[in-house]
Amino acid sequence: MKNLLIASTSTLYGGSYLDYLKDALSVLFSETDRIIFIPFARPGGISHDEYTLKASEVFKKINKKLIGIHEFENPLEALQQAKGIFTGGGNTFVLVNELYKHSLMQPLREAIFNGLPYLGTSAGSNICGVSMQTTNDMPIVYPPSFKTLGVIPFNINPHYLDPISGTKHMGETRETRIKEFHTQHTVPVVGLREGSWFRVQGDSIILHGNVTARVFEQEKDAYEINPGTNLQTIF
Amino acid sequence: MKNLLIASTSTLYGGSYLDYLKDALSVLFSETDRIIFIPFARPGGISHDEYTLKASEVFKKINKKLIGIHEFENPLEALQQAKGIFTGGGNTFVLVNELYKHSLMQPLREAIFNGLPYLGTSAGSNICGVSMQTTNDMPIVYPPSFKTLGVIPFNINPHYLDPISGTKHMGETRETRIKEFHTQHTVPVVGLREGSWFRVQGDSIILHGNVTARVFEQEKDAYEINPGTNLQTIF
Repeated sequence: MKNLLIASTSTLYGGSYLDYLKDALSVLFSETDRIIFIPFARPGGISHDEYTLKASEVFKKINKKLIGIHEFENPLEALQQAKGIFTGGGNTFVLVNELYKHSLMQPLREAIFNGLPYLGTSAGSNICGVSMQTTNDMPIVYPPSFKTLGVIPFNINPHYLDPISGTKHMGETRETRIKEFHTQHTVPVVGLREGSWFRVQGDSIILHGNVTARVFEQEKDAYEINPGTNLQTIF
Repeated sequence: MKNLLIASTSTLYGGSYLDYLKDALSVLFSETDRIIFIPFARPGGISHDEYTLKASEVFKKINKKLIGIHEFENPLEALQQAKGIFTGGGNTFVLVNELYKHSLMQPLREAIFNGLPYLGTSAGSNICGVSMQTTNDMPIVYPPSFKTLGVIPFNINPHYLDPISGTKHMGETRETRIKEFHTQHTVPVVGLREGSWFRVQGDSIILHGNVTARVFEQEKDAYEINPGTNLQTIF
């Protein structure tokens, strides 16, 4: 049975890293005290060691040991033996490229379908969708494919931002960009605002947090869903 | 001798399409009254015909005929015979994908080096750089390469946006994203604010408009350049 927590962001404004998710993480990872961390997305370009250190300090507080997958001689074996996985945010192109380079995309998908508890934030959430094609990140590397884990039947736009009223900037809004995605694809997209997350248990996909999420379907007007909504009933 | 106008945006806040560039366009295209339009970027997903119609109405006002490259049976031949080219904005991934699909990227580069007057706005400007890897667009299609025209020795970030002070949004700023680009590449990047453009004549690349541009070089602090600056003296 699938068992995931897919969060828009790792850090709320004024809060500390993963702080708002601590209780939910204790539940997600209740059956293990050893979690494998995938630091490949390198936010701000930090090293895998630095990133792992930053994340492990938070997990220490809930009595879990976090180990970077890059520390293993055989990352595939580490993944297959893992009892819990956390993929941190950063650049989605870099993350997806590394997952393919290490031949980890498909094994990670299979492990999640087999019940491996998975936490994703930002880029780590983006890859749970059918493709990474609704990322906000710059294409700083060229991955072999935009296809991602597909463990949920839609795409995620993390850090979803509403159009800023009164702005004089003429660049596209997030909504315009997602509509452009739908000129090419039928896959639904959920704009996940900061402070919200999906809890996936089996086929149930429930929105949590204190804000609504925005759903985009091809050839439909976008609409809001409330916390508590089960996406399984929509798509 | 290269002869280009590379603009951050087509439309200023409160203005109409290409209006602020009309005088500069008359100069750029002074030797021809027939311009080939590349509508491939499809802003908001509009059709090639609709986009060409929109652009041609503006060019009519300066007594130029604009013809969409998609209207030709042989687009390569149309490009090779062109006396002026305009590539409009939209989604850079879609634009680059179509240019490769029609085998137009290399011939367009050669034509520009041979002196073909070229106007780019937004995505059409982005492709003048070494790569499209500092675009703001979503990767809604998977192009065969991120390499672009390389007719200027740096990359462009169009619609450049300064960090919004006081925001509670935790997504990356434009500056953070460009810094992430520099963890992978040495190519300089210029953040071109709306209302500014580069006029390229031969090797001279002069910033125009009424705002500064922001220059990012690997392992240096970002800095501003004033209108009138010749980028040829920097890179």
